Amino acid sequence: MRITTPVLTGFCPPLTPRAIILAMKVSELGEFGLIDVLSRMVSEARDPRSPAWQNLLIGIGDDAAAWRCPGAKVQLGKIDALFENVHFTPDTATWREIGWKALSINLSDIAAMGGIPAYALVSLGLRDTTAVEDVKEMYRGMIDLASRFQVAIVGGNISRAGEISVVVSLSGTAREGHLLTRCAARAGEQIGVTGSVGGATGGLRMLTRKLDFDPESYKTLRRAFQQPWPRVAEAQGLVEAGVKCAIDISDGLVADLKHISEMSEVGARVNVDLVPVNPVVKARFPDQSLSMALGGGEDYELVFTAAPEIMSKVKSSLGCPVTVIGETLGGHPGEVELVDSKGRPYELPVRGWDHFAKK
Amino acid sequence: MRITTPVLTGFCPPLTPRAIILAMKVSELGEFGLIDVLSRMVSEARDPRSPAWQNLLIGIGDDAAAWRCPGAKVQLGKIDALFENVHFTPDTATWREIGWKALSINLSDIAAMGGIPAYALVSLGLRDTTAVEDVKEMYRGMIDLASRFQVAIVGGNISRAGEISVVVSLSGTAREGHLLTRCAARAGEQIGVTGSVGGATGGLRMLTRKLDFDPESYKTLRRAFQQPWPRVAEAQGLVEAGVKCAIDISDGLVADLKHISEMSEVGARVNVDLVPVNPVVKARFPDQSLSMALGGGEDYELVFTAAPEIMSKVKSSLGCPVTVIGETLGGHPGEVELVDSKGRPYELPVRGWDHFAKK
Repeated sequence: MRITTPVLTGFCPPLTPRAIILAMKVSELGEFGLIDVLSRMVSEARDPRSPAWQNLLIGIGDDAAAWRCPGAKVQLGKIDALFENVHFTPDTATWREIGWKALSINLSDIAAMGGIPAYALVSLGLRDTTAVEDVKEMYRGMIDLASRFQVAIVGGNISRAGEISVVVSLSGTAREGHLLTRCAARAGEQIGVTGSVGGATGGLRMLTRKLDFDPESYKTLRRAFQQPWPRVAEAQGLVEAGVKCAIDISDGLVADLKHISEMSEVGARVNVDLVPVNPVVKARFPDQSLSMALGGGEDYELVFTAAPEIMSKVKSSLGCPVTVIGETLGGHPGEVELVDSKGRPYELPVRGWDHFAKK
Repeated sequence: MRITTPVLTGFCPPLTPRAIILAMKVSELGEFGLIDVLSRMVSEARDPRSPAWQNLLIGIGDDAAAWRCPGAKVQLGKIDALFENVHFTPDTATWREIGWKALSINLSDIAAMGGIPAYALVSLGLRDTTAVEDVKEMYRGMIDLASRFQVAIVGGNISRAGEISVVVSLSGTAREGHLLTRCAARAGEQIGVTGSVGGATGGLRMLTRKLDFDPESYKTLRRAFQQPWPRVAEAQGLVEAGVKCAIDISDGLVADLKHISEMSEVGARVNVDLVPVNPVVKARFPDQSLSMALGGGEDYELVFTAAPEIMSKVKSSLGCPVTVIGETLGGHPGEVELVDSKGRPYELPVRGWDHFAKK
């Protein structure tokens, strides 16, 4: 009997699970799937003897990281980025706006932890051909916002790159026992939201579709998208009132509420008729305004939960509109139920932003 | 008499200085020119009433920023980045090496301030088509190094991008009065350097020119370029011995010594025959090894200055080779004089890395 070597034919064996994983693209796993994979790796390598791990209060998964600083306040750290052709294009943003927003999205995260922002580091990727004046304009926007929140820009790095990118890392402080986290919601609390939502999506849509709005609407929507105001003072108001659970709206109202729901292991029910839709969005996009407000991201408002007595204190003291849009429920972690005032289910087409989701 | 309006002709008036500045590209100003412009803007907007500014010890311009943290140690913060096609290509780096190096360059900066690293934040720019396994490999490299220095990776963000980029922001702590800064050199001190230099440039040259070296040389040079070992423990040894002034070699030995010379307002004289050139570089690039060691960057060794009695303490206690290569001089801030053992001037063709310099 002869032993023959197998002959290669056109037949291709099915991929094993291991091979499938090896071949998988980040676009298939998605942004949040990838974050899960990486945070699991980090967590498995955690060294319990290391002082850094011992003092860590909040790691990957909340608005910002928090660690105990012996003898001092809790330290907070956050990094977030804007990339050309993803977060902005020369058509939709001025350099000044890019600088403002790159800092603002980080300020919003420090705020959403109940923190006071303090020090910013800036990493720039610039083309050879980028105009110096444009970079200065970007810094003017960043410095303008930094000054309003008494933040010091204390370092950074600059690299040549094929595309513009601005990464800001921001530190801040908070008091132990007074952090706002995603995991502190309890069943039976009210869900509140500051200001109004949908404005950023309205601004993005207006700019990318070159919609011709009146100057007042244009200004409001552009500002909502390009120059969000971080709710630092308002978050301090929440802390003072005794609120424990908050998140800022970056991925979208429903998507961010889902983060709270998952991490706090409570369900959430939202009455969509109560959602404070940005009035300009309501007027300019009458048919889609509600889905824009629920599903669109980057509003940088705060969503939080609180017992009714705390919520009424917050409503009268916060210095910005606060709207109760629903309540947390026992069981059903990760579920955000959307209903209208008559209790009928409301179906949202897209529930938030994923960097690698099919668009 | 008729008043005529000027007629547009082919004549173009010379640019005014203001217009020249507006039209200037970052490649014309250079990396360090741009850093100067931006740090001046930040400094002019400095708010002396802000607690962040009041507690700031070191802002833009040193290896890392440092601020006083009431009741606790000094806090350090650093951000640094690797960009595809600038810092690495798929040809020259594995994903694991990219992860290692992205953290290592930040560890080196915290070390060069006399600090103990603690918490890392990671910002990734990834293509849709990037393989999940590649990102995991990158994290394996980062986690491997983080574990060795008891650093906790505590957060980050991921964005779609046209090119791969990895930005790491690292915090750490130091003791007030025990910082290593660029501005603390005094005239009449010795200049020391840890380990050997030129290895990273040797590795880069070997990889980009696909030079065919024996396995041992290949391994040494590749490691020197792609997996630099941050001198965290050694920097602590310098602090213990009473050293006050240090910098890590990222731009190049002479370029980084120039930073010390400028910021400390002392001159520096280096005997090039004393420079500890990486022995593999010496063997493989006999004609260029000295200029590679002096002008090439990314070695992540420490250059420091100390009085002779402190230097001899350091030499016997540091746990790695320390070589005295020259001395600081009164006057001539920003001048780094290169001479050989016979006192003859040595001319270095390129004095360090500038991201926007003509290559």
